[in-house]
Amino acid sequence: MIARAAAVLGAALGTLNHVRVLAFDIFGTTVDWWTGVAGQVGRAAAERGVELDGGAFATAWRARYVPSMELVRRGELPWQNLDALHRRSLDELLEEHGVAAAFDEPARAELVRSWHRLPAWPDAAPGLARLRTRYTVVATSNGGFALLTNLVKAAELPFDAVVSAELVRRYKPDPEVYQAVAGLLDAEPGDVLMVAAHTWDLAGARAAGLRTAFIERPREKGPNGRPDRAENADADLVTASFTELADRLGC
Amino acid sequence: MIARAAAVLGAALGTLNHVRVLAFDIFGTTVDWWTGVAGQVGRAAAERGVELDGGAFATAWRARYVPSMELVRRGELPWQNLDALHRRSLDELLEEHGVAAAFDEPARAELVRSWHRLPAWPDAAPGLARLRTRYTVVATSNGGFALLTNLVKAAELPFDAVVSAELVRRYKPDPEVYQAVAGLLDAEPGDVLMVAAHTWDLAGARAAGLRTAFIERPREKGPNGRPDRAENADADLVTASFTELADRLGC
Repeated sequence: MIARAAAVLGAALGTLNHVRVLAFDIFGTTVDWWTGVAGQVGRAAAERGVELDGGAFATAWRARYVPSMELVRRGELPWQNLDALHRRSLDELLEEHGVAAAFDEPARAELVRSWHRLPAWPDAAPGLARLRTRYTVVATSNGGFALLTNLVKAAELPFDAVVSAELVRRYKPDPEVYQAVAGLLDAEPGDVLMVAAHTWDLAGARAAGLRTAFIERPREKGPNGRPDRAENADADLVTASFTELADRLGC
Repeated sequence: MIARAAAVLGAALGTLNHVRVLAFDIFGTTVDWWTGVAGQVGRAAAERGVELDGGAFATAWRARYVPSMELVRRGELPWQNLDALHRRSLDELLEEHGVAAAFDEPARAELVRSWHRLPAWPDAAPGLARLRTRYTVVATSNGGFALLTNLVKAAELPFDAVVSAELVRRYKPDPEVYQAVAGLLDAEPGDVLMVAAHTWDLAGARAAGLRTAFIERPREKGPNGRPDRAENADADLVTASFTELADRLGC
C-alpha cells in the first residue's frame, strides 16, 4: 500500500516538473472571506442599531456569488466586475432582511468594499514567500483588478502579479481566464498550477490544460458551512496549507 | 521670487490632492536599461568570441524601440508585445553588425530576455517602499506582462500590481494605456499620477487626463546619451529620484 501510494505520488509530482507559474485562487483559498465579511457586516449593522447576524449575512451574500456570475457567463447580464455583482446581491439581501432603509448609498459602497480587505489564512503569506523563490506566484480570482490589488496590499501577500478575471471580462470556470494566466506569463497551460479550495475551479483549470492543486480549507464557510473536502478533490496535488504546498514542491 | 516659486509649487501640489495611484514607467525611469543590456550583450558577444560594443549595441537597440512601436500604433504591424518587437530589432541589428551567424535561435531568445532582468536605479526600491504606504504603486510600461512581472520580481521592486500596455494591446502614448490604469484601479484619470523620465510619455498621460511627474535620469542613455532634461519637462512635479518624490508627496 505504501509503495503504491508513493508511486502514485511520484507520478503526480512528475506531471508538475514543467510548472513555473502558480496561480492562486483568493476567496476561501488565500483569505478567510467568511470571518472578514461577517465582522465588517456585523459592525456596520451595530453602528446603525440594526439587528443582523454578520455570519449568516456573509454566508447568504457568498451564496449568491456563483449564481450572479452565471448570469454574466450565460449572457443574461452584460459584463460587470465582481464589485458590481456584490452590490447587486447586497441590495437584494438588505431588502430581504428588511433593513434596506438603514443602509444608504455610502454605507452600501463601503460594505461592497469589505471584500477588498479580508484576513489571509495564517499560512498564506509564509507559504507564498517560500514558493515565490522558485515560482512566479500570481493572484487569479474572479475578484476585480482593483479589489485584488487592494486585498493583496492590505493583507501583505507577496504575489508577483495580479491576473484578475476582469482582464479578460470572463469569469472562472470559463477557460479564457485560465488561458490568460498562461498567455500573459508567456507559459504553456501545462506550465501553470492552479491552486484552489474549490473543485469547480480546479475542474475549469484542468479543462483549460492547467495543472491543479487542491487546498483543503475546512473553515472556509464558517463554523456551519460545508466546504469542498480533500476526499472529493480530483487534483494533481492535495494539501492542507500553502506551507505544506511549499514542502511538497521542495521550496 | 521665492514667494512666487512657493505659490507655483503649492498650486502644483494642490492638483495632486486627489491622487491615489502612482503609475511608474519602467525602462529608464525605474531601471537602468542601458547598463543592464550593454552588460548582457557584451558578455554574450565575448562568450562567442565576437567583437561587439555592448553599450553601442544597447543604444542602437533602444533607438529602434519607439519606431518599432510606431509600426504597431499605425497598424503597419499587427499587435505584438515588446519581446516580439525587441526580437525583430535584434535580428536586424545582428545582420547590420555582420554577426548574425554567431547568434543562433536560443542565443537570440536569451538576448531578448536581457530586457527582463535589469538593475533598478538605487533610489527605486527605497522610494517605492515609502510611496506604497500611502499610494497604490503600479508598473505601467510598454513592456509585456511577463517581461514586467519578471523584471519587477528580479529587481525586488515593491509594486502593488503590474499594468502592462499588453493588457489593452496598445502602446503608450496611446490614451488607452493610461485610461486602463485608471479603469482597472477604479480611479478617475485625475486620481492617477504618471511618473516617467520621458516627456513623450508624460504628454500622453496628460492628454488622457492623468497627473504627471518627471523624474530626471541623466544617465538613462549611457555616458554619451542625451536623455530628456528637467528644464524641458512640462509636468505637475519635477524631481530627481523616487526618494525625492516620496519627500515631495509627504511619504
